[in-house]
Amino acid sequence: MGLVIVGSVAFDTIETPVERVERVLGGSAVYSSMIASYFSPVQLVGVVGEDFTGQYRSILESKGIGLEGLETVAGGKTFFWEGRYGEDPNDRETLVLELNVFEQFKPLLPEGARKSEWVFLGNIDPEIQIDLLDQIEGDAHIGCDTMDFWIKNKPEKLRELLKRVDTLFINDSEARLLSSEPNLVKAGKKILTMGPSIAVIKKGEHGALLISGDTVFLTPAYPIEEVKDPTGAGDSFAGGFMGYLASRGNSDQKTLKKAMMIATVCASFTCEKFSVESLEDLSREDIEKRFERFSAMVSL
Amino acid sequence: MGLVIVGSVAFDTIETPVERVERVLGGSAVYSSMIASYFSPVQLVGVVGEDFTGQYRSILESKGIGLEGLETVAGGKTFFWEGRYGEDPNDRETLVLELNVFEQFKPLLPEGARKSEWVFLGNIDPEIQIDLLDQIEGDAHIGCDTMDFWIKNKPEKLRELLKRVDTLFINDSEARLLSSEPNLVKAGKKILTMGPSIAVIKKGEHGALLISGDTVFLTPAYPIEEVKDPTGAGDSFAGGFMGYLASRGNSDQKTLKKAMMIATVCASFTCEKFSVESLEDLSREDIEKRFERFSAMVSL
Repeated sequence: MGLVIVGSVAFDTIETPVERVERVLGGSAVYSSMIASYFSPVQLVGVVGEDFTGQYRSILESKGIGLEGLETVAGGKTFFWEGRYGEDPNDRETLVLELNVFEQFKPLLPEGARKSEWVFLGNIDPEIQIDLLDQIEGDAHIGCDTMDFWIKNKPEKLRELLKRVDTLFINDSEARLLSSEPNLVKAGKKILTMGPSIAVIKKGEHGALLISGDTVFLTPAYPIEEVKDPTGAGDSFAGGFMGYLASRGNSDQKTLKKAMMIATVCASFTCEKFSVESLEDLSREDIEKRFERFSAMVSL
Repeated sequence: MGLVIVGSVAFDTIETPVERVERVLGGSAVYSSMIASYFSPVQLVGVVGEDFTGQYRSILESKGIGLEGLETVAGGKTFFWEGRYGEDPNDRETLVLELNVFEQFKPLLPEGARKSEWVFLGNIDPEIQIDLLDQIEGDAHIGCDTMDFWIKNKPEKLRELLKRVDTLFINDSEARLLSSEPNLVKAGKKILTMGPSIAVIKKGEHGALLISGDTVFLTPAYPIEEVKDPTGAGDSFAGGFMGYLASRGNSDQKTLKKAMMIATVCASFTCEKFSVESLEDLSREDIEKRFERFSAMVSL
């Protein structure tokens, strides 16, 4: 059973108080696909420019990620983001944002992926997310991420999208913004009235919570010794979560709880190195081992 | 097996964005004793003025708390604190602080409590905490809370004290201050080199972590619908933790983990009402029920 992921494929220039890396692989679809590939076959749907050369493709291909849905625009330039983190990794400033080939992007889902039962819409314009959903045949479980920019600037499209979403991934400040509700449990419950049956609220270094029906499930973040680069942590969280659900073929309560813990572990790896570096060398066994350690840290 | 608690007994005037209460019962020893009394016999050691009338004593006595060690200074006034919370309950401003009878306080441990095996030193001047320790006979498990004021203003006395402490309760910013280490796991490990064998770092609404030897244990906060008054949450956390250890008569790894979860639940009750109001009406069954709900929220 495979997972279809649509989202941004990007070059990122990232500055932290101790280091700077230029034009490294990034984007919501990249992080989420790479980590999900440890659990499930993945097909990535996105767009890049001619500057997205073979070396980048091969990083994705080495994880077995299907790139049939990755369009290359002749003469185009890949989406570019430059950002800077402060001493507190939550302080992030966007310095440059160039949409480039994303400005005109219409996703095209490969024929073989249309009947997929698991779909993740990485953070991207909700109109593109809807475009992709329209190509899904049958009754897929739809996971979706979004951000404050879309909540503020495309609220109607986002509301239309949410009616068709099963699991919404959203960070704490965005959950408050979307629901007008400061208390996160109440915010999650309000989000459930907008369409999703599962709300996953991400709190960065403070963990995450899941609200679904009467279920509330809480996970602290996995304590890592040093956060080197938090870029993509949220995408890795969602990718790990969706990849795990796809691998189990269901979303019952027990699977959702384990997915929350798996997702937490996945996000922790991403933060330990720049860009997708730690996701390249990872093994499924590394994930399992850290999951076991994490279980012991949170269970009696 | 009983628990001895020394700390402040106070009148608090508390203002939140929605309500203001005047001269209500407060203080580290009050909150921690009241919640600990649900688990273990408690003897409170502290000092009050003549204004601490029978109505306040009877709140403590109704919980079976031993007040033989609560000194009343003739003509004196009870410790007074006035504070204001912002929209974010973490924003707390101290408006008035009157030490009053605390200025000259020398704790006197009742004869019958000197052989106690469980002692909690609530947040208070480390010199008073040491004074109390000097009266303990035998090998007690010493829990201790402190705050930034003592870390900054009495660092030597605090270091002297820490050498004799088993479990240190400390909040996240204070753990960073004490250890000069921004990463909380590293901060906890550094604190273990100062004397305590167990470091419990409290993160308010973001939960808590325990570091002891190779053990790291993480708890999210219990999600309550509305934080009415966070005053005393940290004291209730420590009181619940120490009361549970005393009731079990040990501090092995399994007991410590359960104590963290019990403590989290205890702190959540305190925040739901002003002052000690919710601790007055509570039953042991209420605590157990919420503990069961909390377990389901964090365990697979």
